[in-house]
This record gives sequence, structure tokens and C-alpha cells, in this order.
Amino acid sequence: MTWLVTGGAGYIGAHVVRAFRDGGIDVVVIDDLSSGKAEFVPDGVPFVRANLLDGAAVRQALDGVTGVVHLAGFKYAGVSVERPLHTYTQNVTAMVSLLEAMAEKGVRNIVFSSSAGVYGTPTEEVVTEATRPAPESPYGESKLIGEWLLRDQAAATELHHTALRYFNVVGSGDPAVYDASPYNLFPIVCNLLTQGKVPQIYGTDHPTPDGTSVKDYVHVADLARAHVAAARALEAGTVLEPVYNLGSGTGTSVREIMDAARRVTGIDFTPGEAPRRPGDPSRVVANGDLAARDLDWKNTYTVDEMFATAWEAWPTAS
Amino acid sequence: MTWLVTGGAGYIGAHVVRAFRDGGIDVVVIDDLSSGKAEFVPDGVPFVRANLLDGAAVRQALDGVTGVVHLAGFKYAGVSVERPLHTYTQNVTAMVSLLEAMAEKGVRNIVFSSSAGVYGTPTEEVVTEATRPAPESPYGESKLIGEWLLRDQAAATELHHTALRYFNVVGSGDPAVYDASPYNLFPIVCNLLTQGKVPQIYGTDHPTPDGTSVKDYVHVADLARAHVAAARALEAGTVLEPVYNLGSGTGTSVREIMDAARRVTGIDFTPGEAPRRPGDPSRVVANGDLAARDLDWKNTYTVDEMFATAWEAWPTAS
Repeated sequence: MTWLVTGGAGYIGAHVVRAFRDGGIDVVVIDDLSSGKAEFVPDGVPFVRANLLDGAAVRQALDGVTGVVHLAGFKYAGVSVERPLHTYTQNVTAMVSLLEAMAEKGVRNIVFSSSAGVYGTPTEEVVTEATRPAPESPYGESKLIGEWLLRDQAAATELHHTALRYFNVVGSGDPAVYDASPYNLFPIVCNLLTQGKVPQIYGTDHPTPDGTSVKDYVHVADLARAHVAAARALEAGTVLEPVYNLGSGTGTSVREIMDAARRVTGIDFTPGEAPRRPGDPSRVVANGDLAARDLDWKNTYTVDEMFATAWEAWPTAS
Repeated sequence: MTWLVTGGAGYIGAHVVRAFRDGGIDVVVIDDLSSGKAEFVPDGVPFVRANLLDGAAVRQALDGVTGVVHLAGFKYAGVSVERPLHTYTQNVTAMVSLLEAMAEKGVRNIVFSSSAGVYGTPTEEVVTEATRPAPESPYGESKLIGEWLLRDQAAATELHHTALRYFNVVGSGDPAVYDASPYNLFPIVCNLLTQGKVPQIYGTDHPTPDGTSVKDYVHVADLARAHVAAARALEAGTVLEPVYNLGSGTGTSVREIMDAARRVTGIDFTPGEAPRRPGDPSRVVANGDLAARDLDWKNTYTVDEMFATAWEAWPTAS
């Protein structure tokens, strides 16, 4: 059992690589380092620096491989609105290229990195896999298209597959691996606190207990382990669901995150308050029962622990 | 006003080219002849033989062009199930390539050839543009993705666009242009009758007046004119709907088509009867009110006239 992790030098990919190695499974990484970092790839892991559109490099990376975790792609949902064609090229065309190479090389297992972004702004407060997708950005579309591609390719050829819809992925499972994304709450808070600035809460009039937006946060190390469970199941011939939500099943408000940040960092601050941002839903929580049943998935971190691992790793990212 | 017609050497494309010329609008054709025929391109129309993935050829074809009718693509919904990656490459990647070239060359108008295939098997008998898309084949997915690409690109750059969802396109507006597709009812009937064989009706126990499946047939010459109206509207700065159904608003049963074939050809036959094919809906009719309002769209052919133009053109296709 040897698995290729596309995007394995990225924040999530690097955790997936570590989870496979912790599980005693050999991994190979392919990553074009457009957002990943070579130093996130552990010593001893074969690393191919290439974009998935480079079919020859992908075929070579697939030598001796029995399955693929496909994480590579353009990951910034907000920016994708300004760069739709780039997003499609990197997320759709590149995945077609990967699936072509896999078919050629007879690699029949794939775990795809999907996203809660496929749901758009859900009207239901608790999102299940039966909630109808309604993506609102090229990024969200491209993730839904990736799920379609797996279903389509499995109808045409032999392919064992599943897709994991990530909710808000946070924290770090290795202080040497983190992501300074300016689009995610945890790194934004770490960044501002490090600079002696005060984080803002956008929207305090939501119909939630403390008035701030409630989302579903999952720790990246828990998330990574679900990929290993999925890979093992596929290799064992278990038929998995086409998609699984990876969410904690519980919601955490922005104010609760701020409280955790205060406790963890010891920095006493009172967050600023600003109006809601358009399109920010009041409450989105994922039902993760299917993943719990099939992928041994559970959220093992408290909010404080999640923030603490982010804060500890922040110097790496900043 | 000069428009590029991608796929302009195909059955529908060749009719679109003729409709533009009839309207006094200059056209250029790009087609890789994978299913089109060079002889369908009228004399005097500049013709570039190339696939849309050939960016340099596309950019050259766009010289002096003010808008694009984009019809090129892999068009066989049924076969797309066996060839999903090919379908995505030809219909999605190629469209991304086209939109990139258009952005580079400053071409800001596009009319996209979409399909009733985006609806899958509709649960509603009368399909409006508000009916929720639920494609069931890579082909149907790729057409819905094309609509998303237009919306996305228009949000990111200046692009004036619409998409026309074709229902069952039949007949011929020029006896020299027809299509021997083995997947469509009219050419199948023409083919069998020419060979002295008897056409079959699949499914005679549908809950319809005569028990056979009811679909919405539109004549290709009417369809082609809607493209000209859309192009003129976009050039005039009129904001069109993102999608229009091109359907007649009335349904015709398979048995009614067979009756028309008998009358038109003078061949006296009694169609065979066979079980329903899986997934064949009993009744799908499009509401074409939006297209009637904005695109001067109407169906001007009776069923007998539709079949007669197909029969007349059949020797060209066979």
C-alpha cells in the first residue's frame, strides 16, 4: 500500500502525509509549491515538484502507487471569484489529467478533498450529505465538479472513491506545519495578536446565543486521520459513500473562538465589533454521523486545544 | 458585427452560420471536424480547422470578431457516460480555453449552446428555466458547467452572455445539411425507412394520451434564428437572461412522429413496440416563454413539416 498525496506540501496535505506515515503507509508527494512548502514534506518522503497538468510527471509519480489522496488545487474560495478560469484549470482540468493518468497506470483508489463550499450558503442549520449542493463560487463549483468526475469515472471504469467535504479546518498537528492564510479566522487572529492588534468580530446581531456567527471547526490532525481510514477502507474493497461531511457536529461561535484565543495566549483583549459581512450565514454545523460510522471520524480537540495548536505553530507560518 | 461560430461545421452550427448570413452578419467558423463536415460551411465563410484547445488558432480566429456562438463540443450524451474525461476535456477545458482567448482579445459577447440535458430527468412535466438542474451524464454536467463558467467569468470580467438550452432539435433548413446521428429519433426513423425496415417504439405504457413518450421537438432553423436574435441583443447592450429554454411549449408523442413519418414518406408501416428504456421520461415539455419574449423565438414548423425537412435532407446525411 503506497499512496500519492497531491498537494502534499500544503497545510492540510502535510498533515495527511504525516497521518499516513503514522499509520505505517508509504506515501509519495506531488506538489507544484504554488502554495505548499517543500519543508513541510518530511524527510524520506519521495517528493515530485510538478503541477498535475504535467501528465508525464504525474504518471511517473504514480509508479508503484495503489491509491491517491487528491488535495492539490487552487484553494481560495474568495479569490476564485476573481480568477474563475484559473480555478477551473487548476481544479477541474488538473483533476481530469490526474484521473487520465490513474486510468492509464491502473491506479484504482482515490480520496478526494472536497469542501463545505459545495453547499454554498446552506438554508439548513445542520448540513447532512443529503443537503443539496448549491456552490456560490468557482471554488465551490470546482469541488462539486470533482465529486461528479469521480462518480462519472467510476461508472466508466473501475474506480474506488470517496470525497471528504471539509468544514472549517483549523489548528496544527505539528508545530512546524501551519498556514498563514489571510482568509481564515484562526491565522487572522494569530496574526493580529502577534502584532499587538485587536481582532474584529463581524456581525454581532446573528440569531445565535451570543449574537456571533456559529461555524463548525475541525482540527487538521483529526481531519488527516479520516483520509487514512478512507484509504484503508478503499484498499480493503469496502464501498464507501460518495461523500462524507467532515465536521464536528457541534458549532462554535466567533466570540467563543475569541475567548479561547484570550485564554490560550494570555493576551487580554476585547474584540472589536463590525457589521456582518454579506453572505455570512448565522449558523452552519455539519452532521458528521456518516464519517463517524465509516471512517472512525471524530473530533478530539476542544476549542482551546485547537487554538493552542494554531498559536504554537503560528511562528512557522508568519 | 462579426461572429465566430465554434462547431460551425456541425449540424446545428451550420444552421446557425446560415441564419447569421441570412441576417447580414459576417461569420467565421472554427471546427475540428471531429463530427462536423467541411462541406457544411458555406462558400465565402472563413473556416479555421482547429480544436478549441489550440489557443493560438482560437486567438487567430477571434481577430476582428465581436462575439462568439459557442457550439463546439462532444455532443453525445449517452456516449459521454463511457467517456467522461474526454467529455470534460472537450466541453469544459476547451471552453475555459475559449474564454481565456476571448478575454485576451477583448471579445465580450457570447451565446452558449446549452442543453435540456442540464435538467436530467425532470420531475416536472413542463420545464421552465427555474426548474432545478440535475444533470445525469457527463454531457449534461458539462453543459451546466458551461453556464456556470459564463456567470463566473462575467462576475470577474466584462462579458455579455446567454445560454440556450436546446430541447430535441430536429429537421433541416438546408437539404445539404443533416446529421445521421444514431442517437436521435428522426435520423433513426429515416435510416430504417430508407433500408425498408420498420422503426420501433420503446414504451407504449406511458401515462400519456397514446401511451408513448412525449417530448418537445424544435426545428433547427427556428433554433438557429434564436442565436441571431441573442447575438443582436448582446451587441446592442441588452442584458439577457443567463439561460433560455428553446422548446416549442407543446409536446409530441413518439407515435405522432411515426404517423408524421408515414404521411411524409408515403411508406405505409406499423411501428414495432418494445419495452420502455430505463430513464426515459414519460413527458417533458419546455416552457419557451422567456425566449419568446426576449429572442423573438417561436416554433414555426408542424410535426409533418419537421419530418419532411429531415426526410428531404436524409440522403445528405446517410
